[in-house]
Amino acid sequence: MELNNRFITIKNPIDGAAEESDFEIKTDSLSLKLDPGSGHIILKNLCVSIDPYQINRIKRYSSSQSASNFAVRIAPGEAFDAYGVAKVVVSENPEYEKDDLVVGLITWGDYTVVKPGGMMRKFDPMEFPLSYYLGILGFSGLTAYAGFFEVCKPKKGEKVFVSAASGSVGHLVGQYAKLLGCYVVGSAGSREKVALLKDKIGFDDAFNYKHETDLKATLKRYFPDGIDIYFDNVGAEMLEAAVANMNIFGRVAVCGVISEYTGRKNRSAPEMLDVVYKRIKMQGFLAADFMNLYEDFISTTYDHLRNGKIQPLEDISDGVESIPSAFVGLFRGDNIGKKVVRISEE
Amino acid sequence: MELNNRFITIKNPIDGAAEESDFEIKTDSLSLKLDPGSGHIILKNLCVSIDPYQINRIKRYSSSQSASNFAVRIAPGEAFDAYGVAKVVVSENPEYEKDDLVVGLITWGDYTVVKPGGMMRKFDPMEFPLSYYLGILGFSGLTAYAGFFEVCKPKKGEKVFVSAASGSVGHLVGQYAKLLGCYVVGSAGSREKVALLKDKIGFDDAFNYKHETDLKATLKRYFPDGIDIYFDNVGAEMLEAAVANMNIFGRVAVCGVISEYTGRKNRSAPEMLDVVYKRIKMQGFLAADFMNLYEDFISTTYDHLRNGKIQPLEDISDGVESIPSAFVGLFRGDNIGKKVVRISEE
Repeated sequence: MELNNRFITIKNPIDGAAEESDFEIKTDSLSLKLDPGSGHIILKNLCVSIDPYQINRIKRYSSSQSASNFAVRIAPGEAFDAYGVAKVVVSENPEYEKDDLVVGLITWGDYTVVKPGGMMRKFDPMEFPLSYYLGILGFSGLTAYAGFFEVCKPKKGEKVFVSAASGSVGHLVGQYAKLLGCYVVGSAGSREKVALLKDKIGFDDAFNYKHETDLKATLKRYFPDGIDIYFDNVGAEMLEAAVANMNIFGRVAVCGVISEYTGRKNRSAPEMLDVVYKRIKMQGFLAADFMNLYEDFISTTYDHLRNGKIQPLEDISDGVESIPSAFVGLFRGDNIGKKVVRISEE
Repeated sequence: MELNNRFITIKNPIDGAAEESDFEIKTDSLSLKLDPGSGHIILKNLCVSIDPYQINRIKRYSSSQSASNFAVRIAPGEAFDAYGVAKVVVSENPEYEKDDLVVGLITWGDYTVVKPGGMMRKFDPMEFPLSYYLGILGFSGLTAYAGFFEVCKPKKGEKVFVSAASGSVGHLVGQYAKLLGCYVVGSAGSREKVALLKDKIGFDDAFNYKHETDLKATLKRYFPDGIDIYFDNVGAEMLEAAVANMNIFGRVAVCGVISEYTGRKNRSAPEMLDVVYKRIKMQGFLAADFMNLYEDFISTTYDHLRNGKIQPLEDISDGVESIPSAFVGLFRGDNIGKKVVRISEE
């Protein structure tokens, strides 16, 4: 039996910002018959994570592509691999049976063929929606948890600033920080997001950066006693403004720099004199380096979820065909919380 | 009895680079009679440290001035305080006697009056020249030692790049790194300095950055397998080039950014995508935060000196009147090694 497998690809490498027209849907035919003993499995994709970092894989040139496995180039015509939840439909791998639920690297498409050794594990979603395993209980959650607790080494009462605070990671960082007893302010790009952060997510304060003309002065207003921790998701001027407002021994977790992904003109030039005199530490990190924290992270976060102490924000679209607009929308700030595309109902 | 006490001051706050004409010598009369019980002492200054950071104390505007005690503003007409070695000439403090040698904060002048609680201690120079206590056995040495071992956390065999490598701190960092078993390359600003680093100081390699047009390509040439540790004394393009050439989990100790001290146009804009994907840590530091390492540092360095395993570079001028040119020369790269002005023979 053969199926049509639709998947997203790019037409050409991109140079700056991505547009929907840079993407196309291709259709392959997929045989459901696997070679016995091949160890392969075929998955029906259920929901898939839409993350900004994918843009660093489709640029004509990126200095980071050789630096790690996390930004491996995707060529025109190739499928995107991405974190997702799926169900086994055919298995020639003794570790998996038909109808097992798995989470791991699938494709931005209808089906995924996984070879032995693929980054994949079976899981039981328990009482939580599948999409949670891409966000709060997935890499976004681990990123927030490891970045905040391990990179920032926070103390109760410290003053924490989070940019892209209603994003997939930011809204979780803010909540972990509040649960620890920090003072937390977030920046976001709309009135609706700011209201959500203050009213639903429990940030002490939040502001719309698009209404601010002098970010240094803005941060001075929200942090009259300075910033101890800046969880950076955006880079550029916001990073410069945060460094200017940091206290001595301040820490910057550089989680992402979304405003720098789409053009070199937006590069950040923080005042290095501040970095020296205030002994600021700026550290880039990837959640994958902190798998040793996974058990801590997951048990802590399960508890918070069950006790209603943490609120996941999700933004879900439907269908493979919605992936390009979902992705491009990340850079316009369309999403509120974790962006997920639901490809199929269970 | 009264003495003439000459000291250096500035005429006006400066805006960009410092010139000798920005400084003047003033003369006060100094009474050698102290109030009994005042706790004051009068010191005859013997030699004094000339450090780039003093420029951050005489600018019309510096964002760092409120950030720490280390860049406290010096107003026109005021004396500069600086690390130095001196001899007690009059003491009304029971802890000090006439002819005691002390090291601590003195002035860029002939004499210093020290109030109780001044940052000062008696010391025995043993077999070493007094000037060593401003360089290799003073704050330059502690800066190199703490910055390299504590901030960079080096491992044997790692690849280390040091900028301003023939400077007061850089030439010591390189030698500590070699003693640990690292591969060390330095940048400097003249053929003479480069030769010194390779032939006398034991760097594996060195280059004259003034002869290079593309620092990224230069560092790629000297570090085909990438940089693990960058000890940054200069900032600006060199920092950008080093970040571009760093390996994953690379560390940047931001010790100073001399090329950024004199103008905002030279600000560094490292590629933050590299910082994220390569999980680079950039950390500013000041030696004063590492006084807990002082005993380790001093005993290790004594041993290296006695065994001839470390070579201090010093650049000594004579007389209070030479201080302005000595200071301004730091920014032209005139000095080779630690810049000291000898104010008086013992």
